[in-house]
Amino acid sequence: MWGIIATWRMAKEGLDVAVAGLQENGSAGDAVETAIKYVEDFPFYKSVGYGGLPNEEMEVELDAAYMDGTTFDVGAIAAIKDFANPISIARSLSLFKVNNMLVGVGAEKYAHRMGFERKNMLTDRAKIHYRNRVKETQEMEISPYSGHDTVGMVSLDCQGNIVAGTSTSGLFMKKAGRVGDSPIIGSGLYADSHVGAATATGLGEDLMKGVVSYEVVRLMKQGMHPQQACERVTFDLDRELIARRGKAGDISIVAINKDGEWGAAANIDTFSFSVATESQPVTVYTTKRVGDSMVHEKASQAWLDDYLTDRMKPLEEK
Amino acid sequence: MWGIIATWRMAKEGLDVAVAGLQENGSAGDAVETAIKYVEDFPFYKSVGYGGLPNEEMEVELDAAYMDGTTFDVGAIAAIKDFANPISIARSLSLFKVNNMLVGVGAEKYAHRMGFERKNMLTDRAKIHYRNRVKETQEMEISPYSGHDTVGMVSLDCQGNIVAGTSTSGLFMKKAGRVGDSPIIGSGLYADSHVGAATATGLGEDLMKGVVSYEVVRLMKQGMHPQQACERVTFDLDRELIARRGKAGDISIVAINKDGEWGAAANIDTFSFSVATESQPVTVYTTKRVGDSMVHEKASQAWLDDYLTDRMKPLEEK
Repeated sequence: MWGIIATWRMAKEGLDVAVAGLQENGSAGDAVETAIKYVEDFPFYKSVGYGGLPNEEMEVELDAAYMDGTTFDVGAIAAIKDFANPISIARSLSLFKVNNMLVGVGAEKYAHRMGFERKNMLTDRAKIHYRNRVKETQEMEISPYSGHDTVGMVSLDCQGNIVAGTSTSGLFMKKAGRVGDSPIIGSGLYADSHVGAATATGLGEDLMKGVVSYEVVRLMKQGMHPQQACERVTFDLDRELIARRGKAGDISIVAINKDGEWGAAANIDTFSFSVATESQPVTVYTTKRVGDSMVHEKASQAWLDDYLTDRMKPLEEK
Repeated sequence: MWGIIATWRMAKEGLDVAVAGLQENGSAGDAVETAIKYVEDFPFYKSVGYGGLPNEEMEVELDAAYMDGTTFDVGAIAAIKDFANPISIARSLSLFKVNNMLVGVGAEKYAHRMGFERKNMLTDRAKIHYRNRVKETQEMEISPYSGHDTVGMVSLDCQGNIVAGTSTSGLFMKKAGRVGDSPIIGSGLYADSHVGAATATGLGEDLMKGVVSYEVVRLMKQGMHPQQACERVTFDLDRELIARRGKAGDISIVAINKDGEWGAAANIDTFSFSVATESQPVTVYTTKRVGDSMVHEKASQAWLDDYLTDRMKPLEEK
C-alpha cells in the first residue's frame, strides 16, 4: 500500500507528479520532496516558496522541515531567504548526525555551500500584495496577518516508510525572523513508520501550543483511525484555546497511517486537502465541521478550476 | 504549594534567589526568569549565556524559550547573538498575539528595539576552550561536539500557575544557525497549569525526535507521577533511538506537577538537578539509572564545591 495526503488544494498538481513515483515503488521521501518542490516552484501560491508573501520588511523568509518516520532523521530550516527549494535543503540536513535544524544566516551559508539553487523569491505579484496590504492596514482597521496556506505532506511508500514534510513562507507581514510551527518537529509535522504521520497548517503560534502533529500520531499509535485522531486533536485544541485565551487561531491537520488510511480536520470552513492512495486517484476534498466530526466533499472540476483562476487572476495595485 | 526544579547543579544559586520570591507569593514566571538570568550572567557555565561556548565560527549563538502553562503564552528566540539575557527576551515575546518565536537577525532587531541589554557574550575563557578544541579535533579523533548543560526550569507558584523556561548556547562547535530542542515548545519545554510542566537537556537533535517535554506532561495529565513520567519518556526514547539508529544521544528531563511533586530522569550517569518546594529547601541531587528507575542522591557540600571549583579553575591554552 502507498498513499500521500497534503494540506490544501494547491498540492494537487504536485501530488500528480509524486504519485507516479510511488506507483513505481518510489520512496515516500522522494514523493514528499517532489510534490513540495512543485508547490514551491509555482509562483501563484502565496504562502509557499516562490511568490510567497513577504514579512513586514518585504523579505520572503522561508521555513521547511522533513522527518523520516523510519530512522527518525529530522531536518529543518527557518527564516532562510532566497533559495528556490527549502524542502530540499531541509531534507539534506536530515542526513547529518547533528546540526539538523539551521536558521537564518547560518542556514543560508549551509545551503550556499551545498550548492542549492539561489533565487530571488520575491515576485512582482508579491510586492503588489505587500503594498496593497500596507495601504489597507493604514486605511482600515484590519490585521496585517491573514490567511495561511502552508503546504504539509505525509506519505507512505510500498516499503512501509512514512515521511512528513512542510514548506512555507509563513505569516504574511510577519516580523523578520518569525518562525511558526512548520519547521518544528512535533507541531508542524511528525512521522513514525510504525504508526503513521501528520502535518498541520494554520496559525503556527497556536499549533505549537498543542504540539498537534505529534499528538495525532500518538493517538494513531493507540489504535485510533487517522480521521478520528485529526478531529480529536483539532477540536480539543480549539476548545482549550478558547477556554484559556478567548479565541483559537486556524487549525488544520492531515494524517495518514501505516495502512494507508487517512484523515483530515480543521476548525475553519475553508480548508481543503489533496489525497491519493493505491486505491484512490489524486482527489481534492473540501471539508467542514458538523458537530464533532468533519464532512469531506469531493471538489468539483469547476471548484478546482475556480481556485486556480482566482489565485492567478491579474492583481491590481490599490 | 510552590515548587521549582531545574536541570543541573548550576541552577542552584539561581534557585536560591528565585525561592525567596516564591515564598512571598511571587509568580512562577518571575521565579523562572530570575533564576535563569542568574545562570545566564554567571560566566563559568559553558552552555548558557555569558561564557557559553561558541559555534564553529567562534560566535556565541543563544536560544531560549518561555511557556506560561495557564494562558499557553509561548515565547522563543534562537540563534541570537550578543544579548545578555535571552530568557527575558523570550518571555517578552510570549506577551504578543503572534510573532512569538523569532530567530537570527530578526530576533536581534526585536531585542534591540525593545532595549534589551547588548553584551559581547564571548569571554576570553570561552575563546581558550574554542582554540583548545580546534587543536584537539585536529590532533585527535574526537568529536567537536560534547557536553550539554542547558538550563531548563519549571516552577509552580502559590496561585497555581506553572511556567517553563530554557536558555542555552547550544552545542559547542555547532554550525552557525544550529538550533536544538531548547527553544522548541514540546521538546525543550512544555507547561500546562492544569497538569504540570517539564523541560529537557541533552542532544537536542535527539530530544526533538521524542517531543519529550510534551510527552512527560501528557503522561502526568493521565495521572502519572512526575518521577515515573520522566523515567518512562527518557527510557522509552533511549530504547527507540537505539533500535532505530543504533545509538541514543544524551537525554535528561525534569518535571513538576500541580501538587508540587517532582521528578527527574536521564540516560547518562552525570546528570544532576536542583529542586526546592514549600516542604524542601534548595537541594541538589545527582542521579543514576538503576534498572528502569532512577536513584537520586543528595549532593554533598564537598561535591557542590568541587563542581564550582572545577568549572572556575584556571584554563590553560593547549
